This record gives sequence, structure tokens and C-alpha cells, in this order.
Amino acid sequence: MKPIWANAICATYFCPKFSRLKQFYSHSFKLGVLGGGQLGRMLIQEAVNYDVNVAILDPSPNAPCAHLVQEFVVGDFADYDAVYKFGKDKDVLTIEIEHVNVEALRKLKSEGVAIYPDPEIIHIVQDKGLQKAFYRDHQIATADFILINSKAEISAHRDRLPFMQKLRSGGYDGRGVTAVRNEEELSQAFDAPSVLESFVDFEKEISVIIARNPSGEVKSYPVVELEFNSEANLVEYLFSPAIISSAVEEKAHSLAHRIVEELNFVGILAVEMFVTKTGDVLVNEIAPRPHNSGHHTIEANITSQYEQHLRAILNLPLGSTAIINPAVMVNLLGEPGYSGPVNYEGLQEALSWEGVHVHIYGKADTKPFRKMGHVTVVARSLEEATTLARRVKSTVRVIA
Amino acid sequence: MKPIWANAICATYFCPKFSRLKQFYSHSFKLGVLGGGQLGRMLIQEAVNYDVNVAILDPSPNAPCAHLVQEFVVGDFADYDAVYKFGKDKDVLTIEIEHVNVEALRKLKSEGVAIYPDPEIIHIVQDKGLQKAFYRDHQIATADFILINSKAEISAHRDRLPFMQKLRSGGYDGRGVTAVRNEEELSQAFDAPSVLESFVDFEKEISVIIARNPSGEVKSYPVVELEFNSEANLVEYLFSPAIISSAVEEKAHSLAHRIVEELNFVGILAVEMFVTKTGDVLVNEIAPRPHNSGHHTIEANITSQYEQHLRAILNLPLGSTAIINPAVMVNLLGEPGYSGPVNYEGLQEALSWEGVHVHIYGKADTKPFRKMGHVTVVARSLEEATTLARRVKSTVRVIA
Repeated sequence: MKPIWANAICATYFCPKFSRLKQFYSHSFKLGVLGGGQLGRMLIQEAVNYDVNVAILDPSPNAPCAHLVQEFVVGDFADYDAVYKFGKDKDVLTIEIEHVNVEALRKLKSEGVAIYPDPEIIHIVQDKGLQKAFYRDHQIATADFILINSKAEISAHRDRLPFMQKLRSGGYDGRGVTAVRNEEELSQAFDAPSVLESFVDFEKEISVIIARNPSGEVKSYPVVELEFNSEANLVEYLFSPAIISSAVEEKAHSLAHRIVEELNFVGILAVEMFVTKTGDVLVNEIAPRPHNSGHHTIEANITSQYEQHLRAILNLPLGSTAIINPAVMVNLLGEPGYSGPVNYEGLQEALSWEGVHVHIYGKADTKPFRKMGHVTVVARSLEEATTLARRVKSTVRVIA
Repeated sequence: MKPIWANAICATYFCPKFSRLKQFYSHSFKLGVLGGGQLGRMLIQEAVNYDVNVAILDPSPNAPCAHLVQEFVVGDFADYDAVYKFGKDKDVLTIEIEHVNVEALRKLKSEGVAIYPDPEIIHIVQDKGLQKAFYRDHQIATADFILINSKAEISAHRDRLPFMQKLRSGGYDGRGVTAVRNEEELSQAFDAPSVLESFVDFEKEISVIIARNPSGEVKSYPVVELEFNSEANLVEYLFSPAIISSAVEEKAHSLAHRIVEELNFVGILAVEMFVTKTGDVLVNEIAPRPHNSGHHTIEANITSQYEQHLRAILNLPLGSTAIINPAVMVNLLGEPGYSGPVNYEGLQEALSWEGVHVHIYGKADTKPFRKMGHVTVVARSLEEATTLARRVKSTVRVIA
């Protein structure tokens, strides 16, 4: 893989189209972001501090980022023409969702736009098959797997039951993943190119957020622990720091560091991992962008993941990832059974509790399990934060 | 003075024009802000977390708030028609600068728009003469003063020399204030309605930020200490917490609490005070809005002053004002001798130091002493933060 920082000269971008040097805060500098959801929204909040001029491409005119930037373009980030047209006058392009048109990014890169992360990395991450192959090829610990092209091939692998079936592409936020536990469930398997992955007998799910800038500086955040909503396969709680042994902590950081180095990654990367009952750490999957498992960093760490992503892609020095206070993050998911204009019941009560920080994403309508916002509870101890976070969860209901 | 919370029913606004209840996060709710400078900009950053739909009125199409909100209206907030037209479809109106048209706000209030702070309070604050009279009438400790209408009257008061002359109206950010030290300087006095205020032999300048919501809940922040740039009469450094005795701390909070109660204030109020060499605390002036002396609260206190202002005017429970870590704030002022497109020299180096948080206000051009941004340094001790902040000050130069 070619080094991907050829376009960046320290924090100053040389833009061949205009033949001049631009500082990130000069009003002619433009950062384009593919995707305008909540991750983009929190990135914009940080970009304001750096006076970085952000432009957004999203198919929905009501996306969470709408109205927060000068240039909000309604268009499909999966469409070649939309991405190319959006990207061609930008100095730097980044993503807040990985399901973007890679062909257009390759073309833009060849024309001198700095693309972080590199299109080839996005290409790998988009395809869970390529992602798993990358781990295997680089001896990065991950669950056993095989690849299949269609449902017809699945019965030949019944000896591997039970397994997880993951669509190679298109899955997001818990969709495109299913457990196939026994022969009866084989009939409900997806009929599409997939990864069949052995069940991992895990004790915990953890995540490491790590950043790297074009100069090669790397910093990772302390490991966090994730608790999932099993019905929706979505993060429900996040605990920072994770309660794990120093051996597990070390393995997790080592895996995250190896991944960014092998990928020559620039930007912020979330590495989701399993801790097995025997203390092994296996990489589950990566997300090459700010991630749900880093939301707490806004209040609970010296540098937030959003600021860190900006620092990385602007080739500024990375900020400290140290914890200020223990924290628990709760996702505010749309309550099953409710659809329509949202009402955050109990929010006012929760706001009266010290250390409760609310982030509402600006989505007008709720639907079952939709990510509508999150709350980060910061406290003097993890126990205290956990107690309060569970109270928030049982008090705030996202209904219509 | 009439109670000023008649329009607010808990956190839900009853809007007579539409005869329905609105939650602050419903997309039909509108918060209007008069002024679109850096204070409005930082308020918007917090409003995003509450999904409050903010509209801005500012005369400059390139104001720091431009492009960060759906409704940015170019118009003069000192003009009756501009303010009335801007305000009439808003649920709540607030300010980020006090030099606004009060007549229009009175009219809007009579028509059912919730105005925080109340127009009558803004009227008092706009006129330093009325402000001083308010302190005198309510036995709130302040420096001795008299009022004059023109320069012609000044010579009758030469027995009071030396004194500060402060324009009753129109002063801002260090302008409209001059020291008259001796008979020779009398000739350079302002020829306008003014306050002549006795010199205060002060040891420190301090500030208390305090908030009150329509339900009457009041919370004040720990006292901070201010260090001014004497040439520009602008805050250069802020230290949190102030190094003062508990007696002084108590006097300062007591003054701040008495002011908000006497004014029946709603919103956030900055109370700037002098600590005299004998340990007395005198009120210097108040600002009925987020203030330079509260910038550090973004990173260094549990609830930022901007979030607190929103909570107050939306009648939500006020947040904790507790200090997370000691902090020093440095204003990034335009270096004398430079005007034009701004360049933040040394910024990259400063970003490599742990605990340095940068806020650039989005002003394209610098001029001498223009407030272009600020840096908050957070550290484990105030000494450490101070050392690093002085290093930031000598490293970052705001030039053209």
C-alpha cells in the first residue's frame, strides 16, 4: 500500500489547483465530510473551535448536520457523481460513515484531494470479507471464519454450526448480522456474500479508539467496555475505563496499534474486540471514523475523539487521550412500539442530576431502536457513574 | 418590577400565537439570539446538544455565528424594526450583547414572546448610570460615583480627581472608559453623559458567573480572578479558582446572589468585582449574558456557562457549577501593528501541550486587540496551568 500522506505538508495543505498554501483556519480551506449524521454533527461542534470550514454530503435534507454548516449538499454519498462533484473543490475529505463511493474517492485522490482515511482502507472496511482476510493475513487475532457467496453454499458448512453470519457489505448499526444457531435456523440465513464466523465464547466486548496523523504520530484511548442491547445488536451502555487486567489492556492496545500501522491509517479508528473467557483478545471489527464507543471522550477525556479526528486529518499534534473522570455512556434508542415526532420523556428529571450530559442528535422522528441521542454520566467513580447511568436509562424514554 | 417568567410553564413553552405546547427540542421551537459574535457561537455549540433551533440576528454577514444556524438574519440588533421583525415568530429571545433595541423587546414581550433577560434589566445594564444607581439603591457595595451630562460639568468635580470616566452608554470591550488622573487630563475627557467613578485601590479583579431560571433556582460558579491588558483594558488572563480568602469568596457570592434576586433575573449574569486591599468587595459592573470571564467553564467546570444559560432560559434544572480541574484562560487578542487576514503563529506548537484547548472565533481578519479566540489550559494544579498558559501567550501570536 502506498503512503497516503503525500498531499500533506505539516498542518498546511498545498493545493495544486490553487498553487498556494492554506492553513486549516483560513476561510478558503474546506473540509468535506461524507455523511451528515450524529457523528458528523459532533465533529462539526469541534470543528467550530478550530474554525475549520466543514461541508457535508448527505442524502437527507433533514440530516442531523443540516443547517450547521455553510455548505450542506443533499446527495448520495454512495453515488460516484455525487461524491466526485462534492469532493473536487475540497482540500481534505473525510467520512462519518463508511458506505461511501470509493471509486470517486480514488479519482479525487489522484487529482490531489487529501482523503483520510485512504480510499483503499475504506474499501477494505466496507467488505467484512476483506476485513477478516486482512486480520488473517497480518496475524491479527480474530474469530475463525470462512466466506460464502450465497445461501446455497451454507449447508456445506453445517459442521461449523453454530456461527454468526455477517453480510460482507451493507450492514450497519446492528443490521446485516444474524446468529445461526442450529440446522433449523439455516433456512433463515441471508442469501448474499457473507462471512460465517465461529461463535466466540466471550466475557466482555471492549473497544479501543486510536488515532494516527500523516506524520505517523499515534495515540490510543484507554480501553472501554461495551454492553449491547441483544434485541437490536446495538451498544446500550459504555463504561470507561473497562475493568480488565493489565494483560488484556496491553493486548488490546497492541492490536489497535498494529492495525493502524499495517494500514498506514490516518484519522480516527475504532477497534471493537472480544475478551474471551481465557483472556484472549480477538478483533471483531473496525470502524474508520469517530464511533459510538468514543462518545464519552467529549466530557470524560482530555481530547474528544472528534477533536482527535480533526487533529489527525489536519496533521496537527494529537491530543492527550487521558481520562479526566470515569464515565458511563447510555445510548438513547427509540423505544420499540413508538414511531413519529419524538418526545424525550423524563429528560428534565435526568438533567437535575449532577454529571449528566445530554446529546440529542436532532432527528425529528423516532422509530424502534433508532439512535436518537446519548447521555454521558461523569462521576468520581465508575460505580457512581454506573448507578446514575442505569437511573438515566430507566427514567428517559424516547417515545412519540 | 413585574415577575418576568409569566410566559414560561416549566420547560414547556405555551405559545399563544399557535395555542400549543412546545418542547425545546421540538423542531417548531425557536430560540432567537440578538448578536452573532463569539458568545453566540459558543452558545450554538451547546444548543446543538439540546437540539435547540437557534436563530441569530447580527449586522455582519460574516459574524462568527454565520453558517452555523438555519436562520441567520443580517440586521442591526439596535434597530427597532429589525429586532421586532426577527423576534416576532420566536418562542424565546435572548442576547449575547447588551446593546440591543429595548423598545422592540418590550413590544415583543407584550405580545407573548419570552424575553430573557427581561427588557427592563437590559435597559438598566445598557446605561452605566442606571446600573450604578441600582447598586446604590439596593445597598450593593460599589465604588463612589456621580453622574454628569457633558464635559462642561466635569471641571466642577475636579476635587474628586483622580477618577474613571465611563460613558453611560455605548461602551464595549474596553472602549468608552478612560482614566482621568489629573487636571491636565480633564481636557481629554469624553463629552457625553458619563459616570465619574472614584479610583478603587484594588488588589484583584474577580468575577462570579451566576444563573437563575424562571422557577427561581439559582447557582453561581466558583470565583475567578482576572488579569487585564492595561493598554486595551481587556481581560488577558483568567484564573480559576481565584486565590482569595473564604471571607472574600463569600462576599462575592453574596453580592452576585443579591443582584440576581433584586433583578428577578433569568439567564446567566457575569458580576465583575474589585477586591480592595482592605478585603472589601465592590461590584464593578454586570453583563447579563455569557461572558469572557466564564469561557473556562467549557472545559473546567461540570456545566459550561453556555449550557447553563440555555438551561436557565428554557427553565430546565440548572447544572452543577463545580470545578473539574483548575484552569487558566488566555484571550487571543490581535497583536498591535497587524491588520488583515489572520494567521495564528505558534498555534501548532501550543496544540502539542497537554491540556491546551483552543477556541478560534471565526473572524477572517485580525486588528489590534481584537478578540480573535481564546485558549483554556486545564491542569492538575493552578500553578501548572498558569505556567503553561503564559507559555501559550508567548508562543501564539495573532498576526496578519
